[in-house]
Amino acid sequence: MDRMEELGFRSETDRQIFREAAAPVELSPFGLHSGMFVPTLERQGTPEQSRKWVPLGKSFKMIGTYAQTELGHGTFIRGLETTATFDPETQEFILDSPTLSSIKYWPGNVAKTVNHCLVMAQLYTQGKCHGTHLFLVQVRNMEDHTIMPGLEIGDIGPKLGFDGVDNGFMRFNKYRIPRMNMLMRYAKVLENGDYIKPKNAKLTYGAMVMIRVFIVMDAFKTLSRAAVIAVRYSAVRRQSELRPGGEEAQVMDYQTQQYKLFPLLATSYAFLLAAEGMSQIYAKISSDIERGNLEDMPQLHALACGLKAFCTWVACEGIEVCRMSCGGHGYSHASGIPKIYANIVGACTYEGENTVMMLQTARYLSKCYIRGQRGESLPELIQYLTTDLNVKSTLGEDCSFESLVAAYSHRAARMVAVACKLQQTNKKKGMAGHDAWNKSTVPFIAATKAHCHLFIVRNFVTILSQKKIDPATHNVLSQLCTLYAVYGIVENMGEFMQDGYFNQDQVSILNRKVLALLEDIRPNAVALVDAFDYPDHLLQSCLGRYDGQVYEALYEYSKSSPLNNTDIHSSYYNYIRPMMQKRSESKNISAKL
Amino acid sequence: MDRMEELGFRSETDRQIFREAAAPVELSPFGLHSGMFVPTLERQGTPEQSRKWVPLGKSFKMIGTYAQTELGHGTFIRGLETTATFDPETQEFILDSPTLSSIKYWPGNVAKTVNHCLVMAQLYTQGKCHGTHLFLVQVRNMEDHTIMPGLEIGDIGPKLGFDGVDNGFMRFNKYRIPRMNMLMRYAKVLENGDYIKPKNAKLTYGAMVMIRVFIVMDAFKTLSRAAVIAVRYSAVRRQSELRPGGEEAQVMDYQTQQYKLFPLLATSYAFLLAAEGMSQIYAKISSDIERGNLEDMPQLHALACGLKAFCTWVACEGIEVCRMSCGGHGYSHASGIPKIYANIVGACTYEGENTVMMLQTARYLSKCYIRGQRGESLPELIQYLTTDLNVKSTLGEDCSFESLVAAYSHRAARMVAVACKLQQTNKKKGMAGHDAWNKSTVPFIAATKAHCHLFIVRNFVTILSQKKIDPATHNVLSQLCTLYAVYGIVENMGEFMQDGYFNQDQVSILNRKVLALLEDIRPNAVALVDAFDYPDHLLQSCLGRYDGQVYEALYEYSKSSPLNNTDIHSSYYNYIRPMMQKRSESKNISAKL
Repeated sequence: MDRMEELGFRSETDRQIFREAAAPVELSPFGLHSGMFVPTLERQGTPEQSRKWVPLGKSFKMIGTYAQTELGHGTFIRGLETTATFDPETQEFILDSPTLSSIKYWPGNVAKTVNHCLVMAQLYTQGKCHGTHLFLVQVRNMEDHTIMPGLEIGDIGPKLGFDGVDNGFMRFNKYRIPRMNMLMRYAKVLENGDYIKPKNAKLTYGAMVMIRVFIVMDAFKTLSRAAVIAVRYSAVRRQSELRPGGEEAQVMDYQTQQYKLFPLLATSYAFLLAAEGMSQIYAKISSDIERGNLEDMPQLHALACGLKAFCTWVACEGIEVCRMSCGGHGYSHASGIPKIYANIVGACTYEGENTVMMLQTARYLSKCYIRGQRGESLPELIQYLTTDLNVKSTLGEDCSFESLVAAYSHRAARMVAVACKLQQTNKKKGMAGHDAWNKSTVPFIAATKAHCHLFIVRNFVTILSQKKIDPATHNVLSQLCTLYAVYGIVENMGEFMQDGYFNQDQVSILNRKVLALLEDIRPNAVALVDAFDYPDHLLQSCLGRYDGQVYEALYEYSKSSPLNNTDIHSSYYNYIRPMMQKRSESKNISAKL
Repeated sequence: MDRMEELGFRSETDRQIFREAAAPVELSPFGLHSGMFVPTLERQGTPEQSRKWVPLGKSFKMIGTYAQTELGHGTFIRGLETTATFDPETQEFILDSPTLSSIKYWPGNVAKTVNHCLVMAQLYTQGKCHGTHLFLVQVRNMEDHTIMPGLEIGDIGPKLGFDGVDNGFMRFNKYRIPRMNMLMRYAKVLENGDYIKPKNAKLTYGAMVMIRVFIVMDAFKTLSRAAVIAVRYSAVRRQSELRPGGEEAQVMDYQTQQYKLFPLLATSYAFLLAAEGMSQIYAKISSDIERGNLEDMPQLHALACGLKAFCTWVACEGIEVCRMSCGGHGYSHASGIPKIYANIVGACTYEGENTVMMLQTARYLSKCYIRGQRGESLPELIQYLTTDLNVKSTLGEDCSFESLVAAYSHRAARMVAVACKLQQTNKKKGMAGHDAWNKSTVPFIAATKAHCHLFIVRNFVTILSQKKIDPATHNVLSQLCTLYAVYGIVENMGEFMQDGYFNQDQVSILNRKVLALLEDIRPNAVALVDAFDYPDHLLQSCLGRYDGQVYEALYEYSKSSPLNNTDIHSSYYNYIRPMMQKRSESKNISAKL
């Protein structure tokens, strides 16, 4: 922190890059403080609240986090049980955890680090519940860091990853805070206990959208790092004879290895561009919103939910493929990949569980489909829903971008239509609306994936056609873009051809094209991962070293294992020697071999 | 160990069950001793060697393991670099690690536990290399456990899982062992240095096949445990409103949750039956082999390679799906699932890397295809290759077992044919044989997966038609079997319909059927996981408890976290307080909020 000020870093991006370089593997204990706590105070506090609290946060006098999930409640925020009941006599809110399942559980850094917390709780005043609101709660004494009376706070125990974050639990026993600790920029509780509603509930969506854009960027970062490691190692590692009697071959020359890694390399580029594309859309729509135009908000919200889920799922699966493509050494922490996986895979659940996210997007698609059926105009990103589904593919040997985007549009439009029709059929059969919806959610999830996939492909193609890129680079990026699109079709062929959109010749073209592209990309594969420009220090991987000295690095890594501080481990004296002696005596077996 | 003798356990199965119950999560430090070291001495030692060494092993006087992989060499055994050179003057072998990449790396328990090791090394005698053979090597002093001079031994450092196993490295510096420490049941080196070849190299395949059958059983065990945890938790957890304004619904009532878990429940049953089916085939073929009939060995070997890879891949992906279906709590070690994953995912790489395994099966399929083309008769498991590919599916609304097995046969036969034709086309284009093969391996992997998938479906159907099962149970198992088969088609639809095998009506039937089966299975889901009869003690999961008291268990788990031994963590005194003080002084911000 101090070092950042010395260096004069002002922008949050610079600060993020610095933090990542300083602690590349473990997450910062102040990540939620800087990323959630302070920004939320800024955005949701009144001007007076912001003026009072934000400087304390920025100067780390007050260290905070964000406490939302409970033991029994996650993504469904309306289900939270923690209560904040207004007491007009003392002008205080009484925070309480009325049940076991209402205990705050999982908030990062709540266990040991923070002295303040933004707590999401059900607001009660004048005997009535007004839904969830945020409250600033002091949780530890500022002088000696002891836990405040009326609170029970602790760590939740070991997890798959996030070793550097003290995720905690917190139980309120009628804990009192001043009325003015409710964040009152939008909703308010007056001194007499009157509740003033916020003008527009959607205004708070902005922060969620932004965080989901960050998560798409995280999906890119993590997948691409795993791909860098796996591709570099595949150029160093030799295994088996490709040519009988010849030298062992670089594993990257095996078609099966290429088929694992090159599509993930293409996916990395596709996700980077998708995250940037989303950021631009976000910036544009945000400025609209500030001018009071909320029209495009649902479109953006739906895109952010869907892509957050789509990209984290794909990245996590892909990271494991990268890891296993490194053979046995991928399993060692020396490869660096297990920690990449352990830290990003939480993103499939946090900030909105992926399936729930997908279904939020699906509901939006369902509404748009109905509007499209009625002939109403649709927002730009959704216009493909009105594609004529009877048109067949014009894809030829060249697999043009146009024909690929058309295929993705057709698939997504068809699948959204199938899901919506099932929902409608269910209703006609007499099911209640919620049942008709629930019993069509499996096809809706599939349709939403198709929708997200289309966005990413179209975005990649659009950028290649619009940006000025030198011809050689453009050529290689076009190969990657084509591979991303063609691989996605080949791996989901049933969805593209169920209605005869492709004929059998076109299926053969695509199957051949994906193998041909592997050969096209092979000569540039290492350059394409070097282009991400991750320093060794950031990758923390013996296998992914820029200089390729992987065996030297693995050997050094092993020698530094803490278990090697002694030649003979205590387990020998404690267990092995007594066992050998006892059993050898009882069995009368000579010690001499 | 002692307790097992007291209890009088004789069979290896009983002993395995006991060990698992005693240490359900971490692997035993003597697993390789009992599972690899002693059995290999028994099978590959001469009768005199066995008589001398096996009792020492069984009584744990001699504690051993199996050292094969090297820093630079894994599944490709011929590439190993460790040498064992015979010196007739002293009647010794000289073991040596000539390069960095030849250092033994990964062998379990080599670092700290064992005093002996079976070492795989390239045998040199009379100036000639005779390939890899096994040698019994003493690595630590029997009196004080010190490392023997001439060896460098250590731990390889932290890994993704296997925390209880001290995987190690071992470097030989011209280390001498007696001639008679070569395992000489098949190959021999005489006193004068003459090398006697083994009669049949395939005889050593038996043990590998057996271990791969065990791994398929491990895939079942781990996937089913994760499924038990996820299904039970899904019955307890409530999330969101299914009916507006109603109580929060059990998450198992969401179609999307059912679509995640019920196919994995069905897969668990399918893998259990597949492992049992393989065991029976193994027993039958083993007794043939003992009578000198090696004809069926390649068929069995191919099946074991393919299923080992297929089942571990599917199980690992499925375990992560189970874990994430538990929402945030799945990420905690309290769920028990992260450790299940961490330990089984190594099986995708050890005992033969999965892609290499798949390609071994693929080579066998390729040979069989050519024999089938020539009109030669094929072994039973492969006869489907001669299916007439022009026949279309007769599948109707009932999705009969017969029509489902026919569909899997058609798909596998078509995909093997496609891969083989590509290989042949490549040759005709003038590629060398190894190139033609390499450049068709992606379709071969897909074809081999289809081959394995067929085996599992057909085996499930066969057992249901042959075994006497009471009608109610038979009905439920038939639903699971149908779900396994129909889900597999729906998720791989492109492979089943690329040649028009299914018409569009049949595709619709299958898509509807899979959703209908979810509803059929829902009432029995908890009973179907209870039927595996895993005690809580074995599952070690707060979420998967038989009594459903998950929140109580999570809260207890958290309270016992080591970080909760003190309320104020040392990081406060070391970092947070100094930072707060320094920054607050320099910024002149009052401590009072």
